[in-house]
Amino acid sequence: MLNYESGTKETKGWIVSETEFRTEYQGKAEAIMSLGNGYLGVRSSTEESYLGQVRNLFVAGTFNQFDELEVTELPNAADVIELNITLAGEKFSLEKGNVKEYRRYLNVRNGELVREIVWESPKGKSYKMLFRRFVSLKNLHLISMKVEITPLTEGAEIKIGSGINGQVTNSGVQHFHEGEKRIFDKKYIQFLQQTTESKIDFVINTVHSWKANETEVAMEPRMVMDRRKVFVEGSLNVEKEQTVALEKFSNIFTSRDKAYDNSDYSLEKLRENSLTNLKEEAVKGYEALFSESVAEWEKRWAQMEIRINSEDSFDQLAIRFAHYHLITMTPAHDNRFGIAAKGLSGEGYKGHSFWDTEVFILPFFIYTYPEIARGLLEYRFNTIDGARKKAKDNGYEGAMYPWESAFTGEEVTPVWGAVDIVTGKSTKIWSGFIEQHITSDIAYAVWQYYQITGDQDFMDKYGYEMLFETATFWTSRLEWNEEFNRYHINEVIGPDEYKEHVNNNAFTNHMAHQNIELAISYYNDLKNNHKELFDQLNSKLQLDEAVQKWQGKINMIYLPAPREEDLVVPQDDTYLQKEIIDLTKYKNQTHVGSIFEDYNLEQVNNIQVSKQADIMILFYLLENKFSKEVKRANWNYYEPKTLHDSSLSLSSHCVLACDMDDRELAYALFQQAARIDLGPNMKTSDHGMHTASIGGIWQSVVSGFGGVRMLGGKLRIDSKLPPKWNGLAFPIYWKGDRLEVEVTNSVLTIKNATKNNSEIELSVHGTEYQLLDCIKVEF
Amino acid sequence: MLNYESGTKETKGWIVSETEFRTEYQGKAEAIMSLGNGYLGVRSSTEESYLGQVRNLFVAGTFNQFDELEVTELPNAADVIELNITLAGEKFSLEKGNVKEYRRYLNVRNGELVREIVWESPKGKSYKMLFRRFVSLKNLHLISMKVEITPLTEGAEIKIGSGINGQVTNSGVQHFHEGEKRIFDKKYIQFLQQTTESKIDFVINTVHSWKANETEVAMEPRMVMDRRKVFVEGSLNVEKEQTVALEKFSNIFTSRDKAYDNSDYSLEKLRENSLTNLKEEAVKGYEALFSESVAEWEKRWAQMEIRINSEDSFDQLAIRFAHYHLITMTPAHDNRFGIAAKGLSGEGYKGHSFWDTEVFILPFFIYTYPEIARGLLEYRFNTIDGARKKAKDNGYEGAMYPWESAFTGEEVTPVWGAVDIVTGKSTKIWSGFIEQHITSDIAYAVWQYYQITGDQDFMDKYGYEMLFETATFWTSRLEWNEEFNRYHINEVIGPDEYKEHVNNNAFTNHMAHQNIELAISYYNDLKNNHKELFDQLNSKLQLDEAVQKWQGKINMIYLPAPREEDLVVPQDDTYLQKEIIDLTKYKNQTHVGSIFEDYNLEQVNNIQVSKQADIMILFYLLENKFSKEVKRANWNYYEPKTLHDSSLSLSSHCVLACDMDDRELAYALFQQAARIDLGPNMKTSDHGMHTASIGGIWQSVVSGFGGVRMLGGKLRIDSKLPPKWNGLAFPIYWKGDRLEVEVTNSVLTIKNATKNNSEIELSVHGTEYQLLDCIKVEF
Repeated sequence: MLNYESGTKETKGWIVSETEFRTEYQGKAEAIMSLGNGYLGVRSSTEESYLGQVRNLFVAGTFNQFDELEVTELPNAADVIELNITLAGEKFSLEKGNVKEYRRYLNVRNGELVREIVWESPKGKSYKMLFRRFVSLKNLHLISMKVEITPLTEGAEIKIGSGINGQVTNSGVQHFHEGEKRIFDKKYIQFLQQTTESKIDFVINTVHSWKANETEVAMEPRMVMDRRKVFVEGSLNVEKEQTVALEKFSNIFTSRDKAYDNSDYSLEKLRENSLTNLKEEAVKGYEALFSESVAEWEKRWAQMEIRINSEDSFDQLAIRFAHYHLITMTPAHDNRFGIAAKGLSGEGYKGHSFWDTEVFILPFFIYTYPEIARGLLEYRFNTIDGARKKAKDNGYEGAMYPWESAFTGEEVTPVWGAVDIVTGKSTKIWSGFIEQHITSDIAYAVWQYYQITGDQDFMDKYGYEMLFETATFWTSRLEWNEEFNRYHINEVIGPDEYKEHVNNNAFTNHMAHQNIELAISYYNDLKNNHKELFDQLNSKLQLDEAVQKWQGKINMIYLPAPREEDLVVPQDDTYLQKEIIDLTKYKNQTHVGSIFEDYNLEQVNNIQVSKQADIMILFYLLENKFSKEVKRANWNYYEPKTLHDSSLSLSSHCVLACDMDDRELAYALFQQAARIDLGPNMKTSDHGMHTASIGGIWQSVVSGFGGVRMLGGKLRIDSKLPPKWNGLAFPIYWKGDRLEVEVTNSVLTIKNATKNNSEIELSVHGTEYQLLDCIKVEF
Repeated sequence: MLNYESGTKETKGWIVSETEFRTEYQGKAEAIMSLGNGYLGVRSSTEESYLGQVRNLFVAGTFNQFDELEVTELPNAADVIELNITLAGEKFSLEKGNVKEYRRYLNVRNGELVREIVWESPKGKSYKMLFRRFVSLKNLHLISMKVEITPLTEGAEIKIGSGINGQVTNSGVQHFHEGEKRIFDKKYIQFLQQTTESKIDFVINTVHSWKANETEVAMEPRMVMDRRKVFVEGSLNVEKEQTVALEKFSNIFTSRDKAYDNSDYSLEKLRENSLTNLKEEAVKGYEALFSESVAEWEKRWAQMEIRINSEDSFDQLAIRFAHYHLITMTPAHDNRFGIAAKGLSGEGYKGHSFWDTEVFILPFFIYTYPEIARGLLEYRFNTIDGARKKAKDNGYEGAMYPWESAFTGEEVTPVWGAVDIVTGKSTKIWSGFIEQHITSDIAYAVWQYYQITGDQDFMDKYGYEMLFETATFWTSRLEWNEEFNRYHINEVIGPDEYKEHVNNNAFTNHMAHQNIELAISYYNDLKNNHKELFDQLNSKLQLDEAVQKWQGKINMIYLPAPREEDLVVPQDDTYLQKEIIDLTKYKNQTHVGSIFEDYNLEQVNNIQVSKQADIMILFYLLENKFSKEVKRANWNYYEPKTLHDSSLSLSSHCVLACDMDDRELAYALFQQAARIDLGPNMKTSDHGMHTASIGGIWQSVVSGFGGVRMLGGKLRIDSKLPPKWNGLAFPIYWKGDRLEVEVTNSVLTIKNATKNNSEIELSVHGTEYQLLDCIKVEF
């Protein structure tokens, strides 16, 4: 049903489309074709309503907690997309009558969502309909829509009801107080909402403009106010083959907007400013506003575009699709907000940020948009007090980052999950308590960012403090084991969430170790080379005391190592002793999590089965610490036991397969990974995009096939194109320079497009180079 | 589309049915076929889901206030009605495929809702389906459903998802904290909710039982927990022409239940008791449980049934339909709750009680179920502290009853209403501030109840106090007018709500006067004959002081009288001076309130146009104070200016037409009044039944055509059958005796069926009688 169209020259490889509409698969298109600009996100639900439709409008960072029993979440703001269309007295619905032509597509190049329909009504009258919609990348508050309707059989009265509907909820949870509803000049609708707990004001404005045959028509629509709803209803009579067009412009502003951070705020001002903004925009019309947004998209593409010359044109679309969503889901405008696990495309995971950002998404930004990457790390710095609170609440020191993070950085992981099929009770979610590796993942990302960008200002202001405080957490977290005379980290969940309450998860221990190692190294560096800042931080964070603990403990941390007999690194203390069962059924599953239809979590806990990459992701992040043989041996042991039930799993395996130089396998994994949202499974994206897997697509291409890595502070490029690819070209930013990399099957070219640094040392295919203007490596 | 079927002998005149299903008219069937028992009410939404459907489950008295900006309302509890039915892989929906046979009906005799369907799926496979449902009148907590499905074309897998869904809201407002969700024994689903502000615990239990060809099938269904939702999904394969039956039993209990009033309450106990209750009931099966409920309905009919021998069989159905809803909407089980303006059949008016109860509904109960009438008046006594608070808050004394009343008796009228078409702002609703006649309406009802039932115990405990406190309110409310040297009541809204901020509304002034008059009379009566109680009340309410004010002011109250020139009683000080416009357009309107599409409320305020009966209702309540000539003159003046935009208007006019002896007019009005919900306008009942108009149907029949009235403490029967009626038989209860009245065109028979009183004085057709066993009056 989903198509990746070859299209015209202009749109080739830029279009994701569907050619049949089925309500049971609405969720997929709503999510993967969702529109956004990082400030706001709108699910691409259809204008007309269908059962099962999920209308979502999220504004980044506007978290609200419904009650003490629930965790804070991104609230679903009032809907502006709904249009009730009646054509000569017949209500338009694709479920009625006869759909003679149908195509819905998202153009990822310009962010426009389009539907082209020829609909024959139940009474046999045909209409041509064109729906267009975009969220502006120029004016982050703006949502524009345009509908054109042409009766084909005979003239008709075209009636459209439209407005703002605040009856929407987050699956039944209402996050807003109802505010004032106004209609100004019988035209501009203004709708106020305030979140119930965080008390964030939302102002939404809407205005309509009607045209018949390109001529603006003055309309005095019927006004209808309902509970949490303001609608107007207009109608026009048109002749056969004449066209009625309705343009609808809506904007949304909130008191959490950056403009009101640390500044005088009044609701009156917000109302006035937002209404003025809408008036100024609406007068330009849909086409002009769209051009402004497209111009912004063009800038993005100029900076990030990757070209893949593949036998399968899907691959090129996949990376563009990833780029599109990486831009639309990321609150690049405001360093107080993180990236949500479902972006702004669905209610799943409540808008919270996970390790997905640092481990799966951030690499794209570090290498492509360093200034956005910095903003995302600043978000972690801005929430460090929440992390300190979590550490303190748990009896630890330093900063213990939350497994799920919202606005304050306090832990917001929900405590209860799905039903336990054995007991009939809800399963307890332990991640918020014991999935602790997030803290070292963030430290790791700080280090990567610094090494790749060379952004000393960031380190001085934020980075060092984060590294030190996270290291301090870990040293307070370590548990002394008398028997083995070493430090253990007990009672955790590693990346593999099918193993709860384990001791010495290899990933967790190694990453904690690396975190402390980094702290010691930068402590020394600062003390020796950067005295003033050192003194400042020392007095704030008692570094001289802290370093005693770091140094005193680091060498006594138990780091699970490859077993002599088979080079397998034990995932944790007990994994290798657990029962081995035949997993064929679950490896061949059609939907993730099928094992829970036969076993409950406690039972799964006692089987050698993994949800996702665990050891593999360790190999990827700490690449130099493990040999290729060890990697292969562990792959052979763990992969058959891994169900890839997390969307984070496949792309990690793809990169690892590249590292093992298994290009066919890597390519197969890439194609699977790229289809987590884009693929034929029509139900998996219902609750929103898998943003980590979107970041994973980029990583598969650039870190995997491109072989790009920062190792020991230096750039390494070790490309490994899969057999089906004849070429790959991508940009990376390295310490302020834009490098343009082009790979074919025998030549790798790197051009420094900016030349801010006189020369760059790097390793390409095992050889060290100095990059001045350009180097060309044949292999 | 709605049918009033002749049916078989057994069902003749008992069935309200529809023979075509259209989603745009769902609301009507959901409301008028709604099920209930006064404890709970369930809208008759279909099992399968459609757009626009409103699933409502209300439990009387469980009010909750979402936030400070909204008024308290009856919260919509989790839904148990939804069934997701998949037949051989095709989702069942009447909007798909081909509906070959369809009939949905409510049997008002036994309270069963039935759908008989033959459905041909889009793939051309036919199924016979029978849906049945009832809310038990025996076990007030129980909702039972049964579905039978028979494949007609070929064998099929019948899959049904079912459970409890707490994602429902009141038009987007979520009133519940999410509580624990449990599945016991893989079978019994238990779902907990707690209201957010009033902290009322709700426990809902559900269990399913599957049968194939009458044989119970053990089922281990798939369990699905979602946010605020627990579902199980079972499936069975059946051969062609074999039948799968699913019985679903649900119950609902709350911590507001009478069982927990003034007693030890624990959620644990509530959970346990409710689950035990469900287990005990479910084992009986649908048919046995239904029989238990039908037996209760038979008792109700034995007590209340009215027989109408009319040329139009609709008339008989109309009164039965009214009886059905009067029973299902009334919380007869608990004197802490009032009757909601929409009963328990919709979200309209938020479950609040208005003067509708006392003036339009209570007469039925006083004359038919005195013990229920007493409970309803006790509700007003139980909320008298709220009324005292309202008086105090407004600077008055005594008890000032709220225009809209919920659990505490405090004023809960919302402040903002529909859009003002001129200003674009919400219109302010003034009723809660200045529609004050409710207080004397309640006093009037107390007096009526006492006179008709002779219930001295009620008066001693509650009635006197209510009469005295309401009279005290009125004397504190009166405003001295220097110019006219009399008391005025300024700045009110009378029954005609199209006139706001008026002075000396005739209805308000006369009723206030009557209220004080009653207080003085009972004061004297008590003091002289009932010394002990008098002393008690005197010390509690300072009656000796109060009576000074009553007596000092009563004769100085301005009582608008008929003008000499035309006998017209001015509705208020300015009505007769307002502009007169041509109202033809609005008198012929297809939907109420059409005048607001041309004028805003301020403009309507300045036109001689009335929403509803105002002077007319005064004539009805204080019948003896106005002559027939005055009634006719005012009818001729006001009726042409009355748009009947309130559902309270037509039945009042019907009774008045009877009083004026205009039987054809009265019958025409009766037929209109009876069609407010039951008629062909498919949109008017969307937000719930018009309960006052349901009471009005009974009043039209018994008070209007039956001519029953209490006048000066005596029963009067002055029957006036309309030309199309050949007979009317109805029961009334008079001071503890059941009187059975039968009227034909020439004879009126009254039989005392109980004879608790040795004789009853009454007036029939202008002649005084003493009723011993039976009297027969020929005319």
